[in-house]
Amino acid sequence: MKVVKTIQEVKDAVQVWRAEGQDIALVPTMGFLHNGHKSLMDKARKENDKVVVSIFVNPIQFGPNEDFATYPRDLEHDRAVCEAAGVDLVFAPEKEEMYKDGFCSFVGMNVLTEELCGKSRPCHFQGVCTVVSKLFNIVTPDRAYFGQKDAQQLAIIKRMVLDLNMNVKVIGCPIIREADGLAMSSRNTYLSAEERKAALILSQTLDLAEKMAKEGGYDAKSLLNALKKNIEAEPLARIDYVEAVNVLTMKPVEELSESTLVAMAVYIGKTRLIDNRMILGGEQ
Amino acid sequence: MKVVKTIQEVKDAVQVWRAEGQDIALVPTMGFLHNGHKSLMDKARKENDKVVVSIFVNPIQFGPNEDFATYPRDLEHDRAVCEAAGVDLVFAPEKEEMYKDGFCSFVGMNVLTEELCGKSRPCHFQGVCTVVSKLFNIVTPDRAYFGQKDAQQLAIIKRMVLDLNMNVKVIGCPIIREADGLAMSSRNTYLSAEERKAALILSQTLDLAEKMAKEGGYDAKSLLNALKKNIEAEPLARIDYVEAVNVLTMKPVEELSESTLVAMAVYIGKTRLIDNRMILGGEQ
Repeated sequence: MKVVKTIQEVKDAVQVWRAEGQDIALVPTMGFLHNGHKSLMDKARKENDKVVVSIFVNPIQFGPNEDFATYPRDLEHDRAVCEAAGVDLVFAPEKEEMYKDGFCSFVGMNVLTEELCGKSRPCHFQGVCTVVSKLFNIVTPDRAYFGQKDAQQLAIIKRMVLDLNMNVKVIGCPIIREADGLAMSSRNTYLSAEERKAALILSQTLDLAEKMAKEGGYDAKSLLNALKKNIEAEPLARIDYVEAVNVLTMKPVEELSESTLVAMAVYIGKTRLIDNRMILGGEQ
Repeated sequence: MKVVKTIQEVKDAVQVWRAEGQDIALVPTMGFLHNGHKSLMDKARKENDKVVVSIFVNPIQFGPNEDFATYPRDLEHDRAVCEAAGVDLVFAPEKEEMYKDGFCSFVGMNVLTEELCGKSRPCHFQGVCTVVSKLFNIVTPDRAYFGQKDAQQLAIIKRMVLDLNMNVKVIGCPIIREADGLAMSSRNTYLSAEERKAALILSQTLDLAEKMAKEGGYDAKSLLNALKKNIEAEPLARIDYVEAVNVLTMKPVEELSESTLVAMAVYIGKTRLIDNRMILGGEQ
């Protein structure tokens, strides 16, 4: 496994692989890899000849008061995770390599970016679309793997690829959870022991959502009221949003259906966590 | 020469060429082809195995009060021009093929889009960047050819390719002029006989700019004052802008140098024409 820091080194490797007729996977990450990332790499490993993992904490997708500076980083650990997963190439650039002097371009989207995380994190998805576009052009992957935990990000990237005719298949992979249900996230490392327990409120509330939806008799409003009440009973939790949306458009729905995604962002202390579920078992 | 209307047909042709190891040129146009376009095709023909010309009047680069509806179109004529130039594939999609239901993505830029045409045509360059990104992804050209007449567009596309790591070489080609000096443009067809004569004021003013710059003794301000006075003496002309800018950044300069581009947009009657020149012979 090679670890490289420059775009040219990636392009050189890709050129050789292309000449050999190999197909190429990309798993874009911000590093501090956990089993959620590992599940993406495992799927990529099974479905492709070559697997590239990018590790880049992308400054332009963080707001001015967000956790760019403190976002956890551990390249040595990440390298070991990638090696064990059979990754071929790790691309871990510095920000100066990705955003050169005079950088001023962007890729973005109307519509899908307005709800959910887009409301509380303006510019976040423009930063995501821009860096993902760059990574797609650098790696030219046949397939790219993203976690369903970032459900809105996944929907946005699928739309971007469709709209801009990008030559890559975007593959969403299921949320990986700790044994007690907490969705894996690099940001879980921010949690104190007490907060770690309180953080279970997210997955536990999604369990409740699924149970209620399967029982029937609820519209989105009555379901969401029950979910909010459930979260508010946890003293360390503060709701950013809890919504029932159409999984393709990310627009709030009134009636629950197979295409309904319940998505939430909840602060546990100072840590903002997200989680989501297709509550009637539809495809994400 | 094939003429196709769907993205899939282009991708199919490109896939075959790629498998054969052919290199591919793209000449993006809005059709109503003239000798300016022909010069792009000729250069593309010389430098590549396969030449694709796109013909698409891109709705999203026109403002609400601009000439999208009346922009001249003549696919039969265009087809003959392409055939004669040895083009391999013409891609002439309808707007529904390029912008499907729910289309909501965009590619754009800060900085370079603020001056010159960006001032009088807000959103224009976002429309250009978006459609050119799509065309690059559809055709995956090795080289793409653009006219220097649209100097700001050329600078913006070069910057976009650099910033987003697109795998294409952007090649700017000299302005082609009528015998009397008028820069060729599909919009020249809007001009009445009287306006056609008055339109010479653009190139004649650039001749003056070049002469003054080579004489020396002028800064940008004194030069531009003289150029504006020269244009204002033509009763049918109304200045949109006349600027001396750095050719890379499109920012106004104070001193004249090899990197200075004089660019102008002037209404002749209702028709907005543009022209520009590197007044001290620098590279564009």
